[in-house]
Amino acid sequence: MTKIRKIILEESEMPRQWYNLAADLKTPPYMGPEGPVKPEEWGPVFPMNLVEQEYSQERWIDIPEEVLGLLSRWRPSPLHRAYELEKAIGTPAKIYYKNESVSPAGSHKPNTAVAQAWYNKQFGIKKLTTETGAGQWGSALSFACSLVGLECKIFMVRISFDQKPFRKLMMATWGGNCVASPSNETKFGKSILEKMPDTPGSLGMAISEAIEQAVTDPKGETRYSLGSVTNFVMLHQTIIGLETKKQLEKAGEKKADIIIGCAGGGSNFAGLAFPFVYDKINGTDIEIIPVEPASCPTMTRAPYVYDNGDTAMMVPLVAMHSLGHNFVPPPIHAGGLRYHGMSPLVSKAIIDGLMAPRSIHQIECYEAGILFAKTEGIIPAPETTHAIAATIQEAKKAKEEGKEKVILFNFSGHGLMDLLGYDKFLNGELKDYELPDNIIKDNLEAIKDYPLPQV
Amino acid sequence: MTKIRKIILEESEMPRQWYNLAADLKTPPYMGPEGPVKPEEWGPVFPMNLVEQEYSQERWIDIPEEVLGLLSRWRPSPLHRAYELEKAIGTPAKIYYKNESVSPAGSHKPNTAVAQAWYNKQFGIKKLTTETGAGQWGSALSFACSLVGLECKIFMVRISFDQKPFRKLMMATWGGNCVASPSNETKFGKSILEKMPDTPGSLGMAISEAIEQAVTDPKGETRYSLGSVTNFVMLHQTIIGLETKKQLEKAGEKKADIIIGCAGGGSNFAGLAFPFVYDKINGTDIEIIPVEPASCPTMTRAPYVYDNGDTAMMVPLVAMHSLGHNFVPPPIHAGGLRYHGMSPLVSKAIIDGLMAPRSIHQIECYEAGILFAKTEGIIPAPETTHAIAATIQEAKKAKEEGKEKVILFNFSGHGLMDLLGYDKFLNGELKDYELPDNIIKDNLEAIKDYPLPQV
Repeated sequence: MTKIRKIILEESEMPRQWYNLAADLKTPPYMGPEGPVKPEEWGPVFPMNLVEQEYSQERWIDIPEEVLGLLSRWRPSPLHRAYELEKAIGTPAKIYYKNESVSPAGSHKPNTAVAQAWYNKQFGIKKLTTETGAGQWGSALSFACSLVGLECKIFMVRISFDQKPFRKLMMATWGGNCVASPSNETKFGKSILEKMPDTPGSLGMAISEAIEQAVTDPKGETRYSLGSVTNFVMLHQTIIGLETKKQLEKAGEKKADIIIGCAGGGSNFAGLAFPFVYDKINGTDIEIIPVEPASCPTMTRAPYVYDNGDTAMMVPLVAMHSLGHNFVPPPIHAGGLRYHGMSPLVSKAIIDGLMAPRSIHQIECYEAGILFAKTEGIIPAPETTHAIAATIQEAKKAKEEGKEKVILFNFSGHGLMDLLGYDKFLNGELKDYELPDNIIKDNLEAIKDYPLPQV
Repeated sequence: MTKIRKIILEESEMPRQWYNLAADLKTPPYMGPEGPVKPEEWGPVFPMNLVEQEYSQERWIDIPEEVLGLLSRWRPSPLHRAYELEKAIGTPAKIYYKNESVSPAGSHKPNTAVAQAWYNKQFGIKKLTTETGAGQWGSALSFACSLVGLECKIFMVRISFDQKPFRKLMMATWGGNCVASPSNETKFGKSILEKMPDTPGSLGMAISEAIEQAVTDPKGETRYSLGSVTNFVMLHQTIIGLETKKQLEKAGEKKADIIIGCAGGGSNFAGLAFPFVYDKINGTDIEIIPVEPASCPTMTRAPYVYDNGDTAMMVPLVAMHSLGHNFVPPPIHAGGLRYHGMSPLVSKAIIDGLMAPRSIHQIECYEAGILFAKTEGIIPAPETTHAIAATIQEAKKAKEEGKEKVILFNFSGHGLMDLLGYDKFLNGELKDYELPDNIIKDNLEAIKDYPLPQV
């Protein structure tokens, strides 16, 4: 076999430290009614060892030995060379993808889920609460809690709870307790149900329920966990890019020219890209492209502002690209990319000119997903197809230019739990959603009196 | 990290030859109305290069370079040490499992699917037909045909087609054409639909449709493909055990004491076990345990006879353990283990005393599956839970005996497409099915006039 398709690493080659981009990129502070939010104010929500990571300015943070042990159930993940996709496109570019679909939950999410579960356990916490939309994050956290020995409570947006029973069954199999949100288990949930008994729910409501249940535990043994956006989540995900660097070296590549990932809250993209952003800051010429749905254009059409991360406005203001916390994106299938905001670190890196975000419509993404499945073999998650579509755009450009570029993207998850979108696409039932400027403008009205981030 | 959980191999370490147990174990011939069936009689059903493998007495058969290339999309698969499962059981035994769930279709099935697709393509075939019950094999063959560039037609038992839409969507995503059986696309299907328009279908009917469509192609460019039972399928699967041998050596294990796999038609079990059967024939002391559902006890309660592999009695008689071709097993969730017969090679190895089959009820299997998911992290397919349950039995025995045995089992597939069984188990809705002797006796009446295999 002359072609080696997968560059693998031994467990002994796993990175021993995470990379913290916050050391190399200054972001404006979280903002509360009294000004910048102090670390200890987060105490009822997150355990202090994670809050410490959130505020850390250290460039390299040790990965605890036990967290490495948890990660080693599926890590290091393979880096694949996409020979057949290259051939189908007829590009001189070399395409590599990091395969995060090999985790037991099927995506990159467990990288931070096991770390968060472990840090909470260390801090004496007995139970984690969280929200989930389509269910990807809820299943990752259930998985992590089952390994570490924590209770796990998931508030799942009611419409997904009813329409996507299989994700719920995954959570239950790992012992997680998943309920439809709004529920009768919180004051907030009850108040919503009284007013709107038939509401389909929303991620905003589910977040509010999860936080309420965490902060009102009379024993103080419950905390809230989340799967994207915050600095410590980005930190935990950098193991993706750090492994990839070793693998590219093994493959004999001096550098990657283009780095691509899909971005909803930003975590899988950041995980792959941040270690390369470090190189870029230090002078290496790399193009870094976060990709979002054209119908939820946080990075490409929304301003850099202070806004709430949650619809219920319970948590401090975050400096980020945001479409406004009331923005409700069209019902595209990539549920994990339907978020109004963006990781503060990713947002700031865009402002600083370190990244060139791009948006793509869903039909082009599904076409890319099908081509990938038929050539490379793995069926991608709808979110992941956005990274593939951008990769194909870049590979075609390299063909036009006749350049042998190295393109690297993050294969963030498989689509085995999300096949209905493919069905609709194959039956010609999918459509693209154009988003008029005035809808974005109207949604931003809600935050017009908020302070502006000083950069 | 002192504990290494996964023993991995580079692509360059992939085995270059399959092991053919038929060279070391004589089986009675396939039997037709005129006596033993000659290779050329299979011509309309299988391409001759596969028929040649079916009849081969060579011990080692080269794996074509291109087939290795196809397999390398996900192979070599990792061998895991199940530290957490060992700890949960409190056993001194060392438990290893070969993880075949890492393939894009989620099971071991693609090992033979890509080989069959490639050999058919080499032989000038343009289209493959097959049947599928729960859909595991149909999706593996769709995947393989899409990579190799063949048309793929799958006849899926109507009740599964209606109840398990997601498998069908997997096949469609890879470009396979899946129809409910009985269908209007074959004479046999039409004849059934005329008599029984509301029939839920059966695997027997689906096989008949798939074979009919293959053998009646006027251009002669269509062949039939199947996912278990025959010698060439067992052959292709031996890459599992051959890789495992290298990995055990890397792990510093001189030998495995006990080898376990679940067995429906026999292919994942044979794939892991046959290379070790070779050692056993040559004097190594190994216990080899194929595990079946107590409600479909082909190996543990059925005789070694000549019987039809298909319900419609279209194909030659096979010497094997069989419950009779009319036997309809109770509706357990491990659909892949609901077959009335067993691979002729596995059957003969049992007759020769090389293996000690075992049967287990489904509730014990689901308990084992949940324990595995909560300790090792991966949710097993319902079929795979049978191997886990037997492993736990053996690990407990080792604990009682105070022996540090090496137990190895095949993790044949993940359960992400089969979560309904877990749901029923967790809700206490599953039951075990006792199979009275007279049901077995009655079903064997149908084959009482068949010849007996001479061994």
